[in-house]
Amino acid sequence: MNIVKLMKKPLILVTNDDGIAAPGLKALVEVAKEIGEVVVIAPDSPQSAKGHAITISGPIRLNKVEVFEGIESYECSGTPVDSVKLGKYVVLKNREVDLCVSGINHGSNASINIIYSGTVSAAMEASFEGINSIAFSLLDFSWEADFEAAKPFISHIIKQTLENGLSSSKLINVNIPKLSSKDIRGVRVCRQADGRWEEDFLEAVDPRGIPYYWMTGKFNLMDKGEDTDIWALENGYISVVPSGHDLTKHEAISGLKTMEMLNLQED
Amino acid sequence: MNIVKLMKKPLILVTNDDGIAAPGLKALVEVAKEIGEVVVIAPDSPQSAKGHAITISGPIRLNKVEVFEGIESYECSGTPVDSVKLGKYVVLKNREVDLCVSGINHGSNASINIIYSGTVSAAMEASFEGINSIAFSLLDFSWEADFEAAKPFISHIIKQTLENGLSSSKLINVNIPKLSSKDIRGVRVCRQADGRWEEDFLEAVDPRGIPYYWMTGKFNLMDKGEDTDIWALENGYISVVPSGHDLTKHEAISGLKTMEMLNLQED
Repeated sequence: MNIVKLMKKPLILVTNDDGIAAPGLKALVEVAKEIGEVVVIAPDSPQSAKGHAITISGPIRLNKVEVFEGIESYECSGTPVDSVKLGKYVVLKNREVDLCVSGINHGSNASINIIYSGTVSAAMEASFEGINSIAFSLLDFSWEADFEAAKPFISHIIKQTLENGLSSSKLINVNIPKLSSKDIRGVRVCRQADGRWEEDFLEAVDPRGIPYYWMTGKFNLMDKGEDTDIWALENGYISVVPSGHDLTKHEAISGLKTMEMLNLQED
Repeated sequence: MNIVKLMKKPLILVTNDDGIAAPGLKALVEVAKEIGEVVVIAPDSPQSAKGHAITISGPIRLNKVEVFEGIESYECSGTPVDSVKLGKYVVLKNREVDLCVSGINHGSNASINIIYSGTVSAAMEASFEGINSIAFSLLDFSWEADFEAAKPFISHIIKQTLENGLSSSKLINVNIPKLSSKDIRGVRVCRQADGRWEEDFLEAVDPRGIPYYWMTGKFNLMDKGEDTDIWALENGYISVVPSGHDLTKHEAISGLKTMEMLNLQED
């Protein structure tokens, strides 16, 4: 970190997917404001599992709110990714953002959950803009989750990122086990574990007699590696997964070349 | 493909993100029903740019509908990914799905658009279940887009996939240029181009005088490679990108190891 950078406070954009009033967002603001100048832009309602959804077919509202004392804050009617786009292109239009942090999510975003997560997608969107970005999640789905034990580790990871960057990545997905500070064994930089959700839809009828389905399922780990986020979390470590947005399965390209041989008459 | 497989018609799950009544879905059903037994499960309303969003905090409705003559069809109140999950775990619970096709999307899902696309996310969700899956998109946003020229190519790609599989991938993202059949030069298997959206939010006030924002932007290509989907499309080819869901930026792991050196007292 050069001297000029050290002389000014870094500008940190804080967002989440659980909404402007979520306790996890409050905890993250409390950590971030000790490190830099914080601006908060978050959805006006819970937006869990919204993935990388954006609002293109309708208007988005943006209201200035006073939720965190002394912190410039906005709520947005759109998705987590909308919040970041409005942050970059409207609220902080003429300013350079040094870091975007998203969370602290109430619940795990390890393994395949990264794909469904609004928390990670918000941070990922900022990474498209060249901003170093971090998604934080605590392995506790409860609204009353206790974020205190996680705070010093989050502070450490934010400071490390501001000082050293994120190697060849612009985004890290950080998950924190539900443990006391003394039981957290440290930080592991690892890869996304291979796993998926097996669904078991609840089928019921509503008060008007109309049937509905409600998604519920169990996570299936298909990966025994000791270099994964799930392994780290199950063994008491905080997992840090450098993440990107190139979905290409490069190794499959050559094996698919036969698809280029077109003979539509024979099909 | 073995003899037993050839003797039965393949079961093809068809979905999309533009909704059950979209012309692109109709075109895809028309192609798929010539090849296999088709079951349609699609959102009951347009769900563009919903990414990998799922409905976890509320009920989902599923209605049997008669939209395509002789084809078992359902509309779902949830997202494109919800539709596939209901297809797999409710409607086709006891059946083996041979292929999932999603689209034909009205508009491009090449390059970074794959991240925002409900069309691709629906196909990707099926790929998590081990089902070979294809997302089809035509580079024409219009509701009145003409899908006729695309049909023989889509038929070719579906047949190839049923016969040969998808190499080490379970998902391909197929984009089709807006050209006449004779002007389409063929198929290119390629990688996702690096690009991003630069937003330019429209700011206006609604009829009640309340301000709103409406997302609009332009695509910035940051990739001059001739092995990309954008290059293929700009040169008159159909692009086929084998795609996955491991977001780990593996090459960044070793460069981030310093983050594991914790000294919280010194922070």
